Amino acid sequence: MYIHQVAAYLPSAVVTNEHFTRLNGLSHEWIIERTGIRERRKAAVGENTNTMAIEATNRVLAASPEIPASSIDLIVGGTYTPHDTIFTMAHAVQHAIGVTDIPVVSISSACSSLLNAIEIVEGYFALGKASRALVVVSEHNTAYNNEDDTVAGHLWGDGAAALIITKERLAPTDLRMRDLITGGAAPVGKASIAVTLKPVERGIVMPFGKDVFIHACQYMARVTRDILERNQLEVSDVSYLIPHQANLRITKNVLQQLGLPEERAVSNIDFLGNTGCAGAAIGLADTWNQLQAGDHVVITVFGGGYSYGAMLLDRE
Amino acid sequence: MYIHQVAAYLPSAVVTNEHFTRLNGLSHEWIIERTGIRERRKAAVGENTNTMAIEATNRVLAASPEIPASSIDLIVGGTYTPHDTIFTMAHAVQHAIGVTDIPVVSISSACSSLLNAIEIVEGYFALGKASRALVVVSEHNTAYNNEDDTVAGHLWGDGAAALIITKERLAPTDLRMRDLITGGAAPVGKASIAVTLKPVERGIVMPFGKDVFIHACQYMARVTRDILERNQLEVSDVSYLIPHQANLRITKNVLQQLGLPEERAVSNIDFLGNTGCAGAAIGLADTWNQLQAGDHVVITVFGGGYSYGAMLLDRE
Repeated sequence: MYIHQVAAYLPSAVVTNEHFTRLNGLSHEWIIERTGIRERRKAAVGENTNTMAIEATNRVLAASPEIPASSIDLIVGGTYTPHDTIFTMAHAVQHAIGVTDIPVVSISSACSSLLNAIEIVEGYFALGKASRALVVVSEHNTAYNNEDDTVAGHLWGDGAAALIITKERLAPTDLRMRDLITGGAAPVGKASIAVTLKPVERGIVMPFGKDVFIHACQYMARVTRDILERNQLEVSDVSYLIPHQANLRITKNVLQQLGLPEERAVSNIDFLGNTGCAGAAIGLADTWNQLQAGDHVVITVFGGGYSYGAMLLDRE
Repeated sequence: MYIHQVAAYLPSAVVTNEHFTRLNGLSHEWIIERTGIRERRKAAVGENTNTMAIEATNRVLAASPEIPASSIDLIVGGTYTPHDTIFTMAHAVQHAIGVTDIPVVSISSACSSLLNAIEIVEGYFALGKASRALVVVSEHNTAYNNEDDTVAGHLWGDGAAALIITKERLAPTDLRMRDLITGGAAPVGKASIAVTLKPVERGIVMPFGKDVFIHACQYMARVTRDILERNQLEVSDVSYLIPHQANLRITKNVLQQLGLPEERAVSNIDFLGNTGCAGAAIGLADTWNQLQAGDHVVITVFGGGYSYGAMLLDRE
């Protein structure tokens, strides 16, 4: 299967670190040093997970005139910041593109949902139940975030991305999905309490950020090595590593463990913050035009709960 | 693939119609006439979607001593009433059974999530990425419901169910999953507004119940006919029809359209209310011991958003 196209949508309002200096006394330098985040985007009034997902979908379809919306036969949405858990994100996208009678489902494995969503598509393709899927990842973190939380309130940003995934190769620029690993790690460390979003009780909280940090670094490095090894590739074969965009220090730690130079990593943390399961897909959209034949791309993710994964993509 | 075992968990507290008479002046007779609901269960303080999912999981594993928890290699959770969208239901179940490094994901297609979850399992089995899955469906409707809502506040109940699904047949009582159809119908009718759960804004509301009613009746009858037809079965071959447990009038309407006698339908609406995506799975658990060799069971669902589906099961 192939990633045929990818596009991102980012809301226009920018929230700089100075906002959190005014609110909570956190200095720009303090935030930068601990997270690498300079600014993040915030959805406007009236925008939400579903509207951002639709914007990203419209963009990816506009970039793929050879794929009429009517040919889409599966929609998988990923988010942990749902606007509506009944008229879900996948339903909103289906409503927007007007295609009936195709499987649609929304999922969450927190920040690693992108790879779970693509693995679900892989399954539908294997069953012969679909061959042209839309995967849409969208997070409206600011709807659930408590800005006054000095531990994690400054981390989160909003954004979305959409991917067209096809069973057959349609264009020379398609990225072949060569391998994909996902895994839950809920029994590990403080997974059940380290970072949570309980919609009824309160928003996103991260009382054990250090536990998340340690396991994110370990798992993303390990699963990247695993996927390379089982595909007979070396770390040095990786043209671009796109890690989950949580924290620049996590990315740097993963690079160091792998022995990859910093320029091989894709990063949008500095201007987007943590955009949840959309972050790595936005990173892929940003990298798309730089990819050359022969390039290998690894997307690796880690999510609260915990979950992890890695996907190996080839530009052939 | 086979459903090897199923078990339900219901919280112990019972909420009778008299509660809504006291609260909103709705009479027992009025509620019975319009919905068929006599009472529903309510999760206790400290219970939630995740704890109920774990209870159902413990029961299904206890009923299957030949399946050690350590052999489970995939967990798919379904809910539209999440306790935590980061440490999701599937993560909570993984945490409880202590199995690491297996795919886990939670999904929502509202009340039709059971069949989407099983279809995702079907995909993992086709890929060879799993062979013994746990599907867990759990709804904590009372956490999101507004009891004062005279339109829909009296409809909802809490409950959960868990299924062990295996690639190979393990026991004579296994139900063969012969066919499965799911579909989204978000472009249809008032799908985007008829029934919604926006965690940030408000709980479950159903401003266009009639639109839901009409489409639930149409889609569940149609997809049941479709799945029978493509498997060369007649309606009269159906031993048990287990529809989504939303409203007794919907069930009766579907039976009438199909020409099936009432005793062929499984119903728990009268004592559980609408338990969301758990309802049909609880119905299967209740029916399990009555099933005989040669029986055909159809589970058909319809969910807000909209989504629908049907699954054909054979006791061989």
